[in-house]
Amino acid sequence: MTELKNDRFLKALAREPVDRTPIWMMRQAGRYLPEYRASRAKAGSFMDLCTNPDMACEVTMQPLERYPLDAAILFSDILTIPDAMGLGLYFETGEGPRFRKTVRTEAEVSALEIPDVNTSLDYVMKAVSTIRGELNGRVPLIGFSGSPWTLATYMVEGGSSKDFRRLKAMIYDQPEIAHQLLDKLAQTVTAYLNAQILSGAQAVQIFDTWGGALSASAYEEFSLSYMRQIVSGLIREHEGRKVPVILFTKNGGLWLEQMADTGCDALGLDWTINIGDARRRVGDRVALQGNMDPAVLYASPQTIRKEVKKILTDFGDHPGHIFNLGHGITPEVDPEHAKAFIEAVVEFG
Amino acid sequence: MTELKNDRFLKALAREPVDRTPIWMMRQAGRYLPEYRASRAKAGSFMDLCTNPDMACEVTMQPLERYPLDAAILFSDILTIPDAMGLGLYFETGEGPRFRKTVRTEAEVSALEIPDVNTSLDYVMKAVSTIRGELNGRVPLIGFSGSPWTLATYMVEGGSSKDFRRLKAMIYDQPEIAHQLLDKLAQTVTAYLNAQILSGAQAVQIFDTWGGALSASAYEEFSLSYMRQIVSGLIREHEGRKVPVILFTKNGGLWLEQMADTGCDALGLDWTINIGDARRRVGDRVALQGNMDPAVLYASPQTIRKEVKKILTDFGDHPGHIFNLGHGITPEVDPEHAKAFIEAVVEFG
Repeated sequence: MTELKNDRFLKALAREPVDRTPIWMMRQAGRYLPEYRASRAKAGSFMDLCTNPDMACEVTMQPLERYPLDAAILFSDILTIPDAMGLGLYFETGEGPRFRKTVRTEAEVSALEIPDVNTSLDYVMKAVSTIRGELNGRVPLIGFSGSPWTLATYMVEGGSSKDFRRLKAMIYDQPEIAHQLLDKLAQTVTAYLNAQILSGAQAVQIFDTWGGALSASAYEEFSLSYMRQIVSGLIREHEGRKVPVILFTKNGGLWLEQMADTGCDALGLDWTINIGDARRRVGDRVALQGNMDPAVLYASPQTIRKEVKKILTDFGDHPGHIFNLGHGITPEVDPEHAKAFIEAVVEFG
Repeated sequence: MTELKNDRFLKALAREPVDRTPIWMMRQAGRYLPEYRASRAKAGSFMDLCTNPDMACEVTMQPLERYPLDAAILFSDILTIPDAMGLGLYFETGEGPRFRKTVRTEAEVSALEIPDVNTSLDYVMKAVSTIRGELNGRVPLIGFSGSPWTLATYMVEGGSSKDFRRLKAMIYDQPEIAHQLLDKLAQTVTAYLNAQILSGAQAVQIFDTWGGALSASAYEEFSLSYMRQIVSGLIREHEGRKVPVILFTKNGGLWLEQMADTGCDALGLDWTINIGDARRRVGDRVALQGNMDPAVLYASPQTIRKEVKKILTDFGDHPGHIFNLGHGITPEVDPEHAKAFIEAVVEFG
């Protein structure tokens, strides 16, 4: 166990005082970086990059070489779990992720096996331990998973979807089948995140990208309850440190109180909610991570600095803020703009 | 002026007692109906259908022939205004709406002329008066427009967009240009809706489809303030009756109080908010329209009935509810399911 040289991120998650607001960016190892595009070209496909621990480590480190970030995040994809369940993940140019097999019927859900994450997803655990070695205590490493609901959307629809028609028909008409599927996913996500923690992840984030497409009651029943189940099953202390859990439901601004009550340590916020309002609503139960509109990075560095200041002012002088974008950084952003963003947080935070 | 035989919808908008909850569906004249698809094939393109008042009237009436709906809505498109401004609207199969010209620079915004809606959009006014004649007092007719922000997204991006990158860069970096564009649009929308009212529209709805993609402060500054300006400029009484205004911001659940304070008569709700919570938040300032997840229509009639009951129960025993979907009905819905939905509201409402 190496000493952690920068624990700002973990301290803020514990709502302890920090010298300045920590920052990382969702999708910080990504296509906006020319060095990432070079690694990707070298690796072959996106999945070739994910499944090669040394390459995954290489791209994970790239944004840290450029910017004064306070955390690294495992380079991987949220759809590794359904792939390990035998659905056959592939990526079609311009089409996003696709699966060769879908899970739509009671028989298909019943037949779905909970994978042994240490064998079928060993490439992820190897990437985690490789990155931890490479980081050598520089900043903490974040592990992650998609939420059961979000994973289920891709598994049932077969890929991206605008209205999640098939899965929604299932939750409304055959809720018991949907629950069986979501429970299998929650068990797998719990094991997956625990294996990441045991391999060296020092915090974990659950990405519920599509929970915000649900009605309030369906969100509670089909997304939040499974994230609660996961939070309850996670290893919360490892290597003598707490392992914090961050919940991020995109478009979940209406449900912050319920999310904060799951037992998680922090909520990820998208940019539609004022972070000061969010803080007043959840009080000091959880830390808050966010929440600049990623589109601000298309604006000038001067404007970016102004928006950073605004969010810091809105949050106010309290512990428990981790600066981030409200969603992943997009491929078209100029890396110099990302730099201006991160440096503004370092300067004003 | 013909007598209105069914004024349930207008009474509910005025928060007056009604014999049962009125219902209409966003996009009720649409591709899920085989008779609509036949009319569309006969007319040629989608715009041919919109610009032909007799055809627009024909498709407006179709859902009323099938179902006991309490309102008709003008068949048209939200992008008629930018088209009238000379941007050249067209539809590419599978790509959605596109414009031949975009508006991105200060010079392009300055050059944009506010159209005379009575000449350049006379086909819309003719459709409104044709439909009013055909309705002959059966149910009220709703007119509509896109919100300035929503129209601007298409005009600046040139079509649909995932992240509204160009318009967002404009609002952050050159807010004065964005304000000039939005002000021209607000003036045009005001004139457009007033012309619809004078032609016979008995209520109007402003569709802010993309306001929910903004941060809280940007929503106030770049979307809501222009809708407030429009509401202030509308004819609010005509033919001896009040002309109510409905504001609908998709994904606007965080901002209901501010929306209710614009002076509008009702808020359209998407399905992400519990309608009982929404009512408690806005009190009796406005009526509420909504809010079943359109995806429920993919479920069985029995499930649809259960969801209708749930929303009625959540809203509770108060005046001021207009039943609707939380967004437009989708093309793949079985018309028999739409029937089950509407009949459930008639039975339980």
